Amino acid sequence: MIDVLSQQVIAGDRRALARAITVVEDGGKEAAQLVSSVFSRSGRAHVIGVTGSPGVGKSTLVDALITEARKQDLKVAVLAVDPSSPFTGGAILGDRIRMQGHTLDRKVFIRSMANRGHQGGVSLATYDAVRMLDASGFDVIIIETVGVGQSELAIAQTADTTILVLMPGSGDDIQAIKSGIMEIGDVFVVNKGDLPGANKSASEIVASLELAHFETAWRPPVIVSIAETGQGIDELWQSVCDHKAFLEASGLLETRRSKRIQAELSEIVADMARRNLKDSLANSTDVQDVITQIINREIDPHTAASHLIPSLFASR
Amino acid sequence: MIDVLSQQVIAGDRRALARAITVVEDGGKEAAQLVSSVFSRSGRAHVIGVTGSPGVGKSTLVDALITEARKQDLKVAVLAVDPSSPFTGGAILGDRIRMQGHTLDRKVFIRSMANRGHQGGVSLATYDAVRMLDASGFDVIIIETVGVGQSELAIAQTADTTILVLMPGSGDDIQAIKSGIMEIGDVFVVNKGDLPGANKSASEIVASLELAHFETAWRPPVIVSIAETGQGIDELWQSVCDHKAFLEASGLLETRRSKRIQAELSEIVADMARRNLKDSLANSTDVQDVITQIINREIDPHTAASHLIPSLFASR
Repeated sequence: MIDVLSQQVIAGDRRALARAITVVEDGGKEAAQLVSSVFSRSGRAHVIGVTGSPGVGKSTLVDALITEARKQDLKVAVLAVDPSSPFTGGAILGDRIRMQGHTLDRKVFIRSMANRGHQGGVSLATYDAVRMLDASGFDVIIIETVGVGQSELAIAQTADTTILVLMPGSGDDIQAIKSGIMEIGDVFVVNKGDLPGANKSASEIVASLELAHFETAWRPPVIVSIAETGQGIDELWQSVCDHKAFLEASGLLETRRSKRIQAELSEIVADMARRNLKDSLANSTDVQDVITQIINREIDPHTAASHLIPSLFASR
Repeated sequence: MIDVLSQQVIAGDRRALARAITVVEDGGKEAAQLVSSVFSRSGRAHVIGVTGSPGVGKSTLVDALITEARKQDLKVAVLAVDPSSPFTGGAILGDRIRMQGHTLDRKVFIRSMANRGHQGGVSLATYDAVRMLDASGFDVIIIETVGVGQSELAIAQTADTTILVLMPGSGDDIQAIKSGIMEIGDVFVVNKGDLPGANKSASEIVASLELAHFETAWRPPVIVSIAETGQGIDELWQSVCDHKAFLEASGLLETRRSKRIQAELSEIVADMARRNLKDSLANSTDVQDVITQIINREIDPHTAASHLIPSLFASR
């Protein structure tokens, strides 16, 4: 089944692609098989992360970016990822409705992903979903994350190019940039540029960036946009393309992808450790005995874990 | 150093306790040692989780709960945990300032914890910080989580008793309860009870709970409170104490703690897997070679991880 599915994904079948993303969302062995079978066909797409606080207009901006990319006849996929679901599930549904101007376009694919309950699950599933879209022939993959927490940043960083979206007067966000937290942004956008203070916010960001230390020669541009009307979106798209060209010319694309693979491997081994423990808890009386010992305060969880770990992986 | 620190923690030294929590926040071997040396002294405190959307008045409510607990001369500690820091760091600082009415009380200890950057880190650190407070002699430990995402819920579930705080008219939250997601609440509070619609919200929750399926004989009470004035807080505190008595009498306290220990073990093995991989990446050329193979699309990350895992743990 997985073999057929992977062939359909590679052939660009949209329904198969939707199913494949559900498989990787669920994780586990089937997901690993599927990734394994399409992996050699991936690595070609430009992956763009879009992140920012709720209400800054990320979805409208993504919608406008799709339009730009389509002008160049690029195939575009959007993954709207919400790591803090179930509570904000409504927001994502709204996003999908908003983007429905593109639903008849066969070269646009939009998909929401939410946390299916197991920790660390969203970021792993995001890596793999990007791979499915990539293998399926999409040129541009936009990962939109709802929110600005740690997990959202982690997801944004799975991208080649990260766009950080702000709006005028969002003082907290600008404070975060000043304190150097947001050095992950490759391109900054002050959206809702028709609101008062847009240029001031942009200048503040520019000033902060001038003081910042960068590890590479790339200097993040700061763009004022009005996504609703499309104003500034061509400039934004150009910056994103410039950043891609910079990554390729400087060899940094490979450095970035190498870092990303390390982070991914780390999440995979963590996930395997969790799954193996879960299996052992269900099947091994030794492991159940350890739990009882912990409850009786005869052994602490950290010591118990270091005793358990060799046997968790020994039989595999 | 860890030995001395653990003795000071057990002796109830506040400064040592603060240092110990920093050690467990950082994680790794020192944290494990510290936990190991105080573990036999823990397990006595009543751990209360307080969670809910931003703006519902959690901090004021926690402040009022401290006052209730102090009336019975119980020693109270509060851990304000923000898994989606750095962005919302301000909120937590605000919380601490708000609770400063208790700062001169030597039987009250308030501490903020934020994500120090590594995934899964906050929940592990929370387990261990609770243990430090517990071993240090606090009778009641309140874990306040800022926000309502998946990680916040996971943290709230490290408690014996979980209080879910809502406010009148928070339709999304009530929707979430209806869809059965919020069955983790042991006690429900509609705070800001002086706002319009408070009783309607409470009735809606009661109605949802009547339809819900419960695994135990406990039926979550729904309390309307005004934390600012203290109204309803005595009733809330009584419900929390009733829940504790129920857990003890029914033997469910042990069941809950057993589940919690399983979840914790799972996070510990995942964390160990991540750390061992990180060490190997720094020290082993074999592991570096695997990364190169992945970049060259010769092997996919899932297959690579399953090859790497035995060696990650073999030498330990």
